[in-house]
Amino acid sequence: MPGPGPTIADIARAAEVSTATVSHALNGTGRLADGTRRRVRDTAAALGYGARGPRTRTRTLGLAVTTYAGSAWDFAGVAYFSRLLTAATSAAHARGYALTTLPADRGAEPLWHTLAVDGMLLLDSPDGDLVLRALRARGLPVVFDGRPAAPRPDDVWVDNDHTATTRAVLDHLAASGARRPALHSGYGREHYTAAVTSAYAQWCAERGVPALVIPFDPADTAGHAFDAAFAAPDRPDAVYSVYDPGGHQVLAAAARHGIRTPQGLLLVCASEDAGYADHEPAVTTVTLNPERIAVVAVSALVGIIESGQAESPGQRTVATGLRVRTSSRPPDMY
Amino acid sequence: MPGPGPTIADIARAAEVSTATVSHALNGTGRLADGTRRRVRDTAAALGYGARGPRTRTRTLGLAVTTYAGSAWDFAGVAYFSRLLTAATSAAHARGYALTTLPADRGAEPLWHTLAVDGMLLLDSPDGDLVLRALRARGLPVVFDGRPAAPRPDDVWVDNDHTATTRAVLDHLAASGARRPALHSGYGREHYTAAVTSAYAQWCAERGVPALVIPFDPADTAGHAFDAAFAAPDRPDAVYSVYDPGGHQVLAAAARHGIRTPQGLLLVCASEDAGYADHEPAVTTVTLNPERIAVVAVSALVGIIESGQAESPGQRTVATGLRVRTSSRPPDMY
Repeated sequence: MPGPGPTIADIARAAEVSTATVSHALNGTGRLADGTRRRVRDTAAALGYGARGPRTRTRTLGLAVTTYAGSAWDFAGVAYFSRLLTAATSAAHARGYALTTLPADRGAEPLWHTLAVDGMLLLDSPDGDLVLRALRARGLPVVFDGRPAAPRPDDVWVDNDHTATTRAVLDHLAASGARRPALHSGYGREHYTAAVTSAYAQWCAERGVPALVIPFDPADTAGHAFDAAFAAPDRPDAVYSVYDPGGHQVLAAAARHGIRTPQGLLLVCASEDAGYADHEPAVTTVTLNPERIAVVAVSALVGIIESGQAESPGQRTVATGLRVRTSSRPPDMY
Repeated sequence: MPGPGPTIADIARAAEVSTATVSHALNGTGRLADGTRRRVRDTAAALGYGARGPRTRTRTLGLAVTTYAGSAWDFAGVAYFSRLLTAATSAAHARGYALTTLPADRGAEPLWHTLAVDGMLLLDSPDGDLVLRALRARGLPVVFDGRPAAPRPDDVWVDNDHTATTRAVLDHLAASGARRPALHSGYGREHYTAAVTSAYAQWCAERGVPALVIPFDPADTAGHAFDAAFAAPDRPDAVYSVYDPGGHQVLAAAARHGIRTPQGLLLVCASEDAGYADHEPAVTTVTLNPERIAVVAVSALVGIIESGQAESPGQRTVATGLRVRTSSRPPDMY
């Protein structure tokens, strides 16, 4: 078994530049003279960096969330990701692979060029994902959780039907009496956010309902983003909060404004957090089925690694589930 | 950054032997001529394999369960390990490290010699652990969850006080009326099983109570191991089941024998599985606090990696908790 190929430092030494310059040259970032960029890339190619063809097997899969939204964050602390991570670990181990999870932190980027893995699971890869570019340059197989921004013909990704799910949630809220449902969304640049927000806008347009998107911020634990909307005379009478911690933020804001749920405000949250079931009132949740996503994604990635190509490129769609609880039931049903 | 050091294949080529011979020579296993073993080890040393001193940083921690009990198993499917894994992932990422989890499978052993990590968390390392021997040969820092079988003076491990916890559980059962508590234990060869079983025997001896250890088997979902004991006239009136799935096995066996809990049988299970709280009757559990164990272990390991030595060798003790529920309450209290 030969080693995992040249490192950034190997290329830097051979090209007589700094490792930062190598990183910029390979990523297409920074301000480099064209000649320097070309020389680094030629050197990297000469050393076999990113070469396609039979590669050393590490029996290791990588897993990373690459929507950073500007700063490091603890994705394993979010129920969706921790449940996906546990299931992906079991699935990888069952196939005899180790699983490496990377910090969701731009400071981890040097790792991307040297990481010894046979393939990567990228979760929520955003438009212009530099990590993805580095992996593609190395010729590493990638399977996505969430449709990538610019899929290639042979890409494989696992996703839910976010349009259908969003419409089902809004139809459910309307059936429970909502006339002005707001969307709590807009964080991150990955496909999920775009798909949900666009489906919401379309649904509102079809019904002639004004669309109101309240921006989500993970640090806004008291839900201050809702203050203006909840104080307005035409305030929303329902909220679909599309990220895991969002429901708690909505409830905190509603309590501050003296609005009861579900009497004055219906609430649905996309979440895998079991705590919503124990909340008073119990909160209706949408599950995206992360355990199933993990199993399908690991299976697809191992298939590509072991056969050299995807059996069938494109999307593997995993069903979602709506768990209706008190927070979104009409007054006569709870 | 130089590469991660010579691989088994590099050593095999240089010493002109097979990779299996290298593995045997470095592990001290197999039947090799002394000259061959010496030549392989000298070659490995000459190539810098396992050399101490400043090593290449991979910014990656490894995590593995090394009590295999003879076959591959899905440790991430057990609540204790999945919760520890999630917390270890968050803690590693917060320090800027990736985290690699290895399959609990003897077939993964080739990985141990080449794995590119800065240090390892070993969970439930048993007596004679070959993985530990391979890591020690490479000079890799190791922190243990669970006291290792033969600690070295500079070893660091995180553990609970299993003697005190077991005595507290048995005292609780006795206070609830138990006169013949049985122990459901005996699986695996790691410290936890030995410590709990020994504390149980001691407690029984002190009180002149007969000790009855029912062997746990993960495949025994119906709890057939209890059939003989539950059919006997002097059957146990309480069980402390010391592994996560054991409580369900005890309840299945009790139901088959027409024994109600807690009226005819008190039950406590060491488990992090939230399902026991929702069971009818709700099952008393002991939590070993895996999230806290993970945080303490990651912090200790990163400290050793970054400073080159343990600040204070020995045990870090993490508190346990007893969540008393219906299954172990005396008849007049539920």
